[in-house]
Amino acid sequence: MGGDHGPSVTVPAAVEFLSCHPDGRVILVGLSSAIESELRQVGADTRSRLKIVHASEVVEMDDAPALALRSKKDSSIRVAVELVKSGDAQAFVSAGNTGALMAISRFVLKTLPGIDRPAIVSVLPSMKGSTYVLDLGANVDCGPEHLLQFAIMGSILAESVEHKERPTVGLLNIGEETIKGNEVVKKAAELLRESGLNFIGNVEGDDIYKGKCDVIVCDGFVGNVALKTSEGLAQMLGTFLREEFSRNWMTRVAALVAAPVLSAFKKRVDHRQYNGATLIGLKGVVVKSHGSADRFSFGRAIERASEEARNGVVSRISQRLGTMENAA
Amino acid sequence: MGGDHGPSVTVPAAVEFLSCHPDGRVILVGLSSAIESELRQVGADTRSRLKIVHASEVVEMDDAPALALRSKKDSSIRVAVELVKSGDAQAFVSAGNTGALMAISRFVLKTLPGIDRPAIVSVLPSMKGSTYVLDLGANVDCGPEHLLQFAIMGSILAESVEHKERPTVGLLNIGEETIKGNEVVKKAAELLRESGLNFIGNVEGDDIYKGKCDVIVCDGFVGNVALKTSEGLAQMLGTFLREEFSRNWMTRVAALVAAPVLSAFKKRVDHRQYNGATLIGLKGVVVKSHGSADRFSFGRAIERASEEARNGVVSRISQRLGTMENAA
Repeated sequence: MGGDHGPSVTVPAAVEFLSCHPDGRVILVGLSSAIESELRQVGADTRSRLKIVHASEVVEMDDAPALALRSKKDSSIRVAVELVKSGDAQAFVSAGNTGALMAISRFVLKTLPGIDRPAIVSVLPSMKGSTYVLDLGANVDCGPEHLLQFAIMGSILAESVEHKERPTVGLLNIGEETIKGNEVVKKAAELLRESGLNFIGNVEGDDIYKGKCDVIVCDGFVGNVALKTSEGLAQMLGTFLREEFSRNWMTRVAALVAAPVLSAFKKRVDHRQYNGATLIGLKGVVVKSHGSADRFSFGRAIERASEEARNGVVSRISQRLGTMENAA
Repeated sequence: MGGDHGPSVTVPAAVEFLSCHPDGRVILVGLSSAIESELRQVGADTRSRLKIVHASEVVEMDDAPALALRSKKDSSIRVAVELVKSGDAQAFVSAGNTGALMAISRFVLKTLPGIDRPAIVSVLPSMKGSTYVLDLGANVDCGPEHLLQFAIMGSILAESVEHKERPTVGLLNIGEETIKGNEVVKKAAELLRESGLNFIGNVEGDDIYKGKCDVIVCDGFVGNVALKTSEGLAQMLGTFLREEFSRNWMTRVAALVAAPVLSAFKKRVDHRQYNGATLIGLKGVVVKSHGSADRFSFGRAIERASEEARNGVVSRISQRLGTMENAA
């Protein structure tokens, strides 16, 4: 029940999820009193598909991951991850501390055989639809084999959740030519060419938004910088646009006339739609929501987790890696 | 005389530069016949401050840097860089092949003592003005000492060209805490803390556009991805905005009413203003323009080169490094 807003956001989002999915069930994990007080208004049908599991501790946003793992054994994150491990939950969504979420998930669930390190993957909008990008920050130093593992996982995600056949995979680099990039990227390109994946070669930063391929793989350092840079730029452009429209009475009239168009534009590029980054490579579905998520936004993260669970992403990755190992 | 448009863009931009700077002089290097034909309309005063130096060869945009360096000894890039070396020119601007420009500049001019590798630096717009970011792609594998050198150079650039006192320097990372990042970045942070620069610590991708500091340093791989990602996102948002305003007759009316505002916004975020990336760390000023630059855009790159030459950026870096060496 973490994130900047706590149960006041996560509980209503969960209730809304249930009303959209008549077969859905949700377990709310956290301080039960806080959760109960948010549930007062909920109707009987929905309430019957909601369960509360009490967790007495809270991982703070600035807790060190190792500390949260070692000393907060009754935190909502820990309890929820244990529910995924035991099979009582098919997926877990958290708006809490990313580092702690990763450390606890990795410790409790473990990585899938053939996966050395889980990655953080998210979907970004593009001119042609959307692009899965990974890793977005879990691994700051990747070897070529890790980039290959990311490509396999991203590919299965695009296949199972977006229902794309043989998703195209690009390797994030600083030029399209094969001679470009550092040693890790060059070696990763070789592995990708031999992998049987639909590898289209090197792509550049702008290709994320051009929609050149379905999946883009990169080192977590690079991916995180690309993501954050995008957030910063979008915010700056939004601010400048607002400022220009509120400069004087004439521009404010223009803003009134243009309001429906601007609102359609805003809706189209609304980053909240894309909320929910998956910790992929674990023996279970764990989705991280932005800490600052509002109800709509957190709801999108729940949808993502639910989609991945329904489409058996974890077992598909596991199967594919088994097949690859047998073939090798 | 390279770039996508050749002399039809570069020559008029040079002429315009001369009319804005009555004390300026320009040497045009390239196929003299092509340059002459662009100069036909130019008035006598301007013409007297323009010199043509013929270069018989052209480095193509897809020539390998090593090949361009070895086999095209009379290319316009080579001839122009030699003019900087001999002191006949104080700066060189090119819209040509970046790799070849770097290889030739490095071979002919050499790096400044204390600088292992030149970097590519450019200014990006921010909420508070602008930010110098380097390296943007010259060095795909950097050690901590290279990041320190980038910080020194970027700092002097912001000091001399933007006239900022003790410019603030940030280290691009994936979190603000000192424990974040890979080994290179952690070690670089230590060096920066001891450097005497106005180091503010780690910054994240979004801080580029938030304008958290005057200079941001990073590995060339990361910097290039951040830059290209920004280009891609800006292009996508621009396209979406145009699409929304041209959806039907009502949105087109709104576009008419909002036209002055949209045009002010466009002007404010016009990337052409920021054209001109400096190859910094060389014994001479070399500025790279976007290959696709138009006249206005190429003119900005000339202005940048001129500013750096006027403000003695190269000798200031050299001096600072001398001082640091003596202090060490």
